[in-house]
Order: sequence, then C-alpha cells, then structure tokens
Amino acid sequence: MFKPDRLERPFVFYEDGRAKVLSLAVKKGDESYSVFLPIKEKKYPAPNKRQLAWQEAELGVVFHYDLHVFDNKKYGQGNNRIDPVDDYQIFNPKRLNTDQWIKAAKDAGAKFAILTATHETGFALFQSDVNPYCMKALKYKDGKGDIVRDFVNSCRKYGLKPGIYLGIRWNSFYGVHDFKVNGEGEFRENRQKWYNKMVEGMVKEICTNYGELFEIWFDGGADHPDNGAPDVLPIVRQYQPNCLFYHNKQLAEVRWGGSESGTVGYPCWATFPNFYSHAGDTQKERMILLKHGDPNGKYWMPAMADAPLRGFNGRHEWFWEPDDEEHIFPLENLMEMYYKSVGRNAT
Amino acid sequence: MFKPDRLERPFVFYEDGRAKVLSLAVKKGDESYSVFLPIKEKKYPAPNKRQLAWQEAELGVVFHYDLHVFDNKKYGQGNNRIDPVDDYQIFNPKRLNTDQWIKAAKDAGAKFAILTATHETGFALFQSDVNPYCMKALKYKDGKGDIVRDFVNSCRKYGLKPGIYLGIRWNSFYGVHDFKVNGEGEFRENRQKWYNKMVEGMVKEICTNYGELFEIWFDGGADHPDNGAPDVLPIVRQYQPNCLFYHNKQLAEVRWGGSESGTVGYPCWATFPNFYSHAGDTQKERMILLKHGDPNGKYWMPAMADAPLRGFNGRHEWFWEPDDEEHIFPLENLMEMYYKSVGRNAT
Repeated sequence: MFKPDRLERPFVFYEDGRAKVLSLAVKKGDESYSVFLPIKEKKYPAPNKRQLAWQEAELGVVFHYDLHVFDNKKYGQGNNRIDPVDDYQIFNPKRLNTDQWIKAAKDAGAKFAILTATHETGFALFQSDVNPYCMKALKYKDGKGDIVRDFVNSCRKYGLKPGIYLGIRWNSFYGVHDFKVNGEGEFRENRQKWYNKMVEGMVKEICTNYGELFEIWFDGGADHPDNGAPDVLPIVRQYQPNCLFYHNKQLAEVRWGGSESGTVGYPCWATFPNFYSHAGDTQKERMILLKHGDPNGKYWMPAMADAPLRGFNGRHEWFWEPDDEEHIFPLENLMEMYYKSVGRNAT
Repeated sequence: MFKPDRLERPFVFYEDGRAKVLSLAVKKGDESYSVFLPIKEKKYPAPNKRQLAWQEAELGVVFHYDLHVFDNKKYGQGNNRIDPVDDYQIFNPKRLNTDQWIKAAKDAGAKFAILTATHETGFALFQSDVNPYCMKALKYKDGKGDIVRDFVNSCRKYGLKPGIYLGIRWNSFYGVHDFKVNGEGEFRENRQKWYNKMVEGMVKEICTNYGELFEIWFDGGADHPDNGAPDVLPIVRQYQPNCLFYHNKQLAEVRWGGSESGTVGYPCWATFPNFYSHAGDTQKERMILLKHGDPNGKYWMPAMADAPLRGFNGRHEWFWEPDDEEHIFPLENLMEMYYKSVGRNAT
C-alpha cells in the first residue's frame, strides 16, 4: 500500500471561467503520483464542518504570550519586529497556571482558546526539534517546559477546544521581515530556504504532537508558497483534517472582520467573493468587504471579530504589560462587542 | 571592596612615538573607575608566561568537529559558510569517545589539545544559555550533551592542556559573513548587536565553565571591537589570566606561521613588528613576515605551524569526511613537519 507523506502542487484547472479539476501531487519520499479530482460546483456556497463548528462556537479567547512579557517594559510592536530580545532567559514564569487561563475563558463563555505558540520574537513556546529558539534553550524547567502542552492539556481538562496561533511573518531572531529573510544574494536565499523548512517543520510538530486542534491561525496570513513562503496548507490538511485553516493566499476558511474592535459591520455576510481574504480593488473596498462580506460571494468565509482585552481608555494592546489594568475593557464594553459580533453573524 | 566584573576601553597613550601609559575603565554594574598604568618599555621583547608555556609545549592537536561531519558529504567550506545545515538533528554520534581522541594526541607527543567549540555552521558543541543553536537543541542525549565538557575532562585525565577554538567570523545559522550580520538598516544593526552580545556571552561561558584553559583561538581573528565586532579580549583576560590569546586586532600572543603546511620559514623569529598579526604593506610582505618574523620586531609573537592531518595526496581538509583515509599524512611527512616547525622555533 502506498501511504503518502505529503501532498504537493495543488492546481485548479479552469474551463469557461469555472473551476473544473483539482490536480495534486501525492508523494512519498521520491515517489510521486498525480491525482485529478473533478470539482463539482455548488450552486450556493455552504460551510464545511470546520467552519460550522467555528461559527457555532461563537466565542474564543486568544492568549498572547511571548518573551517580552517578561521584560517589564511597554510593548512596542514595530521595534519588537526588528530587535531580537536581549536575553531570552528572562522567560521564567514563577506562577504560570494555564488551568487558570482556561478556566477564566470557560467562565466567560468561550468554547475555544488559542495560544500564540510563536509570535514576532520568533521564540517557540514548545519543545521543537527544528527550531532551536524554543523552550529547550531555557534554564526554566531545565529546558523541559512546554507551554503549548500545558495549554492544550488545560483546554482538554475544561472542555475547551484548543487552537494554535503561529506567527511566521515576522521573526526578529532569524532576521525575517514580512516573510523575507533579511540579507543579500545566495546567502539570503539559502537562509530563506532554511527558514521556510524550519517553519514547515514547526507546523508539522504543532499538528502532530498535541492531538486534535480546532483552529490554526497564521497571523498576517502565511503568504503563498509561490511567493517563496513556507508551504503550510498541505501539512495542516494532512495531519489536522478537522482544523480550521486561517489563513494564507491559498485559502482562508474564515476572514478577518476588518477591525480589531471586536465588532463587524451590519449586515455581515458569511460569504465572500474570493477564496482568500483579500478582495476589492482599493483599500476602502477591501475593508468594506471584510466587515460586511458579500451576499453574492461564491466562497463561505465567515467573519472574525477580534479585539485585545487591553483596548480600553487610550491603549490597544494584545500583550500584558506592567500597570495596564486601567486599559482592560469593562464588562459593558465586552457585552457591546458581543452584540456587535456574535449578534451579527461573526465569531 | 570593589570587585570589578569587567575591564573596558583599554587605551595606550603615546609620547614621541613610544607607549607611555595604558588607561583602562574598571567597571562593576554602573560603577566605573579609570585606571592609568605606566608602561615601562623593555629594551628587548620577551615572552610572557602564556607564550613561554605555549612555546615549550611544542606540539598541540586541534580537533575539528561540527554538524556537517554527520552529513556524509565532502565538506565545502565556501558553501558551508553561506548555507545553514539542513537538519541539525543529524548530530548524533554513536560511539564518540573523547578519551580516545586525547589518548591518541598524547601518544603522538602533544602537550595540549584544542576543540572547535564553534566553527562556521555556528553550532555550539556545549551547553549554552546565550546561544540556542547548541547541544541543548539536540535529541542527542536528550539535549544534555556537552562535547566541550567531555573534551576538557579527557584532557585533564591524560594530562594534556585543553584549549578552545571559537569561530565567530562566519555563522551560516545567524547569517553572519566575515563578522557582519547580513541584512539592511536598523534591523541589521540590532541583530549585529545581539550577535556580538551572544558571542561575548559564549566566550564568558567557555572561560568560566570549564576550568583553566591553555589557549583560546578565534579563527580568522576576532576583528576589533571598534569595527563593530564582539569585544572578547577583556573577557578572556578577566576570567582566564593564564590563557594564551589568539587573536584579534587588539592582540595576538602568537601569530599564524603563514601557511597551513605545518612548516614555517627559516629562520623564524619569535619577534614581530606589530602587536597584532598583520604587518607589511603588501600581501607578499605580510606572508614573509608571518613565516619569518622580524629580528628587530618589538613584540614577542612566536609562529604557529598548523596543518590538517588530511592534507596528503591532493586534499587539504580539516574535517573528517567519508573515505578520506588516503589523504592522511604518512608518518614521514609528519616528521618532516616537526623538523620544519618545532625545529625552527614554531609550535
């Protein structure tokens, strides 16, 4: 029996402007077979099982956690993207309790939770065998810590579905800016290849070492492999068939709702004119489409209404920082968000 | 009592072209004192205790060991410098025995031995808390391996003096080429600062975690901190006062003998016209000075005659590779080298 270890080169053939056939290279080692699958066009777009589960979940909580939470400073995203964290050994939580995280999320009514397994420092909050810049490098727990494992275990314990956020667009440690390894010539190309393979390796680790995942969230999208970006979609599809994929330029199973305000527009259609979440010719058109969707859109792509908990009273921050309690949204604002997100067909 | 934790900004004042005073900033935390030391010019240069020990040792063995020893391919230095090793988990020796290394060196008559703790891949063969790309990242020995520790222990066991080679000029993992982090703008500068600090941290680890060292060898030199390179000399001086420093643009306690042939010129003076090992206006002049020294040189800087064991019969290779036995120098060639190196006042 031929058990493929990867799927490559998905390609859609068009006839008269309609998708007719999907071709795929099914591979194992050096063996390769081409498979052609007819595409039956549906009259109306409908959610798949992953999208349905996500929409029915209504409320999820994203936990932002990275090295700089420990630097005792106000977080500055722009600088964080281009300045490696001085000393990664600052990562040394004394009373970390992911049960407390997840219990709080459950008490708030969340059905799923997501953890930033990597954010923009590039540091991986788990045990990786492909990325040395991970918890293995820490003195903390003698290099044996695994926050992704703790987080997933806590989710299972409290009955929330675990999802993982992977930031691969920015990486101050490896010198990656907007997907591109900084540098010149052949050296840059070699390091880009290495980086892409490392990212693909991390995606496989996340998809295979922690059981079933509800959602995988590539922040800022994961670009398109044809643009020289890591080829992550086939890995997620192969190892996590029930995991919602958000998102790259090949596929977005949900779309960003056009703001970080916790709200979407009204009305807010779950349909969208493009198979990935960029559409519209101008920035203004794009934002309107993200917020409202398109009733005639051929693709099911419901809207996500995200907001940082620390977005009140003159701050908009995804990470904890010292003395930021005054910026936590009061309950009435959160309720308002709920009405203008879940109440409007978003999650 | 004030116990400084570092010495910075060494500066020599000249009068009538002669060094008169050395100033140093003696620091602890934010405290800083300036110290001025009169320089008594000797009539003739003489070896210091480190140089004397090194010259009396006569014979040392340098062990080259890095990730690519495990890739089963012929080693190509140029490519290795600009292409990160695909999968660092290939590092997985089954029968590594540093006792056997050191016993063989002792049997050959060596009095000291040196290990490439880092070479051009950037991978560190020890337990580092400042460089994640080290043995902590490996599956090998569950991330607890430390070849530097094994090597030093074997040296102590057999009575050889241990030295450490640190390659910091090239680093394909971090994207460093000829000391410079590849890239542009502020991002590059930030990563350069991070890299320099990381290197200084590794030097401190090497100098403080493994007992007394005989020699520290920065291959290709360690450049000058004023050129934006890591500032390594004060660290070695502070933590390893008896360790021979080879070399950067501030100091070379020995000099390269001008070839990798295991021989030096005849005659070969231990004196040299410059305090670091570059002198002469043309490449030809420079090579002659390295091979022969200068009887009128003001600085004691004996010559090192290095050669790869695999330099016979059409190959010149510092690392083991598959099927390279035919390139190992026969005994008579090694004896010839001995006569033309130790016999000519080199080590």
